[in-house]
Amino acid sequence: MTPSGGGTRFALVAGTTDTAGRAGISAAGADSELLSVTPAADAELVTYGSPVRTDVVPVSPSGCPTPALVTRAVREVLGLDVTIIDGGLAEKTGAPTVSVGARPGKDIAEQDPVPTAHGAFAAARQFGQALPADELYLGESIPGGTTTALGVLRALGENGMVSSSLPENPTEQKENLVAEGLLASSLEPGEAENEPKRAVRRMGDPVLATLAGLTAGAVESDTAVTLAGGSQCIAVAALVRHGGYEGSLGLATTSYVAEDESADVRASADRLDLDLTVTDPGFDESDHVGMERFVAGEAKEGVGMGGALALADRAGIPMAEVRDRFAAIYDDLIGDATMATAEEGP
Amino acid sequence: MTPSGGGTRFALVAGTTDTAGRAGISAAGADSELLSVTPAADAELVTYGSPVRTDVVPVSPSGCPTPALVTRAVREVLGLDVTIIDGGLAEKTGAPTVSVGARPGKDIAEQDPVPTAHGAFAAARQFGQALPADELYLGESIPGGTTTALGVLRALGENGMVSSSLPENPTEQKENLVAEGLLASSLEPGEAENEPKRAVRRMGDPVLATLAGLTAGAVESDTAVTLAGGSQCIAVAALVRHGGYEGSLGLATTSYVAEDESADVRASADRLDLDLTVTDPGFDESDHVGMERFVAGEAKEGVGMGGALALADRAGIPMAEVRDRFAAIYDDLIGDATMATAEEGP
Repeated sequence: MTPSGGGTRFALVAGTTDTAGRAGISAAGADSELLSVTPAADAELVTYGSPVRTDVVPVSPSGCPTPALVTRAVREVLGLDVTIIDGGLAEKTGAPTVSVGARPGKDIAEQDPVPTAHGAFAAARQFGQALPADELYLGESIPGGTTTALGVLRALGENGMVSSSLPENPTEQKENLVAEGLLASSLEPGEAENEPKRAVRRMGDPVLATLAGLTAGAVESDTAVTLAGGSQCIAVAALVRHGGYEGSLGLATTSYVAEDESADVRASADRLDLDLTVTDPGFDESDHVGMERFVAGEAKEGVGMGGALALADRAGIPMAEVRDRFAAIYDDLIGDATMATAEEGP
Repeated sequence: MTPSGGGTRFALVAGTTDTAGRAGISAAGADSELLSVTPAADAELVTYGSPVRTDVVPVSPSGCPTPALVTRAVREVLGLDVTIIDGGLAEKTGAPTVSVGARPGKDIAEQDPVPTAHGAFAAARQFGQALPADELYLGESIPGGTTTALGVLRALGENGMVSSSLPENPTEQKENLVAEGLLASSLEPGEAENEPKRAVRRMGDPVLATLAGLTAGAVESDTAVTLAGGSQCIAVAALVRHGGYEGSLGLATTSYVAEDESADVRASADRLDLDLTVTDPGFDESDHVGMERFVAGEAKEGVGMGGALALADRAGIPMAEVRDRFAAIYDDLIGDATMATAEEGP
């Protein structure tokens, strides 16, 4: 634990958007019903290392475990301070959370999908100003979040494609849905340029609004901010830049996101003037079942995974140690369940 | 930080009761208006080491700092895992909290002062069952809480007097108020024997209901429980005993409570078969301004101070180290303010 008033703090904003309910949008849960539980479970996993109220460890339909287990592994190795912020949770979590008034987001094809966006932005900004930390790493957990991130980028008039938790990025489906949302919100692409609150309320989700508020507040009080994630963090950075902030901002992501050619996060980071850190957990050096789906291109990011890995790397922790801890947590939580599934298979 | 699924966890239940609004009942705030902020501020102090949303470090009217600073000092020395549970907070806290549905309690002279007691007990019990820990230390922060503790004891038919955050325990005022409350609730003393939920709903507060639920749930899942505090923890133990639990329960309190002849906590602990640990922080060995009001008999306990000290002692931490850390935190947070007050004095 860091002493009073300083050090590194990792904050996770967890919430939901009905946009995730569209088939083929997200891999952040074994089925569409479980998607809304994922952020509540991720919060518990990072906090306690096991589910408490949710009683579930999120996996993708093909068995890729939630990146929360990676973040938790780093947390156990580093003893990292974590604060969970309720960015519109739909299910009860046993993790302690800070409230900023965010409520679950609706589908972005609706006219006003995030009515709590302005209030959550303002409360998160105040909280970010007051939160004692020398530096803040900000992660997210929200299934369907890359699609709402695309919605925000298009509303702001930013180019670039977002990444995906699926190995094959459904970019056409996302663009079509965003076009539908812009129409429902009576917005032309780029019409919300320099109007970040309008963009996130009409085309985003409550997690993006909360993260943008936290970032704005933290930089206002001279706390260094590193956005820990991929496409959604690009959208947060775009919101903050369109709000007029021109100072230093970090982006720490995984090699899986950085190498995703469908998204080109490096170019987006360049355009938004973000200090990019890319960390490779080296999962391809292992044949552990919990890592193979990451190597196959699933998940890629989430729950601040890229930022957690960057912090471990900066502290001189070998990635092999992070992998070992991740494997131990995975085996403890879902190793048996996976084996049971395998036995039932064809 | 402890690894997944085990270790020692410290849980703080913070909440409010309108009973604290009665003049002369509590020293847990500089004035009656600030009393309702104290638990929200205590939660922030234990979590972050400084106020975040509350913007206040609670002190008594005579300047005794909140025991939260002692618990925070131990936390910084030991790296203790802390979980804050919302036991009916009246003000927004920047500390992350777990919700069990508790709402602020009304004055016990009303007929139904804690309508959320049953729901909070049930949700806290489930949470206590699921919370991963080998042992759980449970503390409280609720101004006016010794009076509601007395209310619960009398409703259950337990003898003994409660302690006080004031140097002179207003025992007669408390007994009169409890008698008024029993009348309003149509209860004879002892009429709620073996009916803990009825006792806490009619004569207690939401923090006592939440702590009783947590204790019940934790012992049901074989987590060792130590109640960290004084009179309020005696009331929690009485609620759990009257609910039929006969197993082992710890009580860790300060020397200030143990030596309070107006209360005789030792006798109550004996009657309820609690394993008592008493720890003296040795504040009398220092002439630090932040410790002198404790030595004069103010505060005595709160925010799990006795349990935190017991954990430090068990870990072989010298009390001098705890005192040094406490002094540093105090000087950083309120040293200047105290000096300013002194300069303005006569």
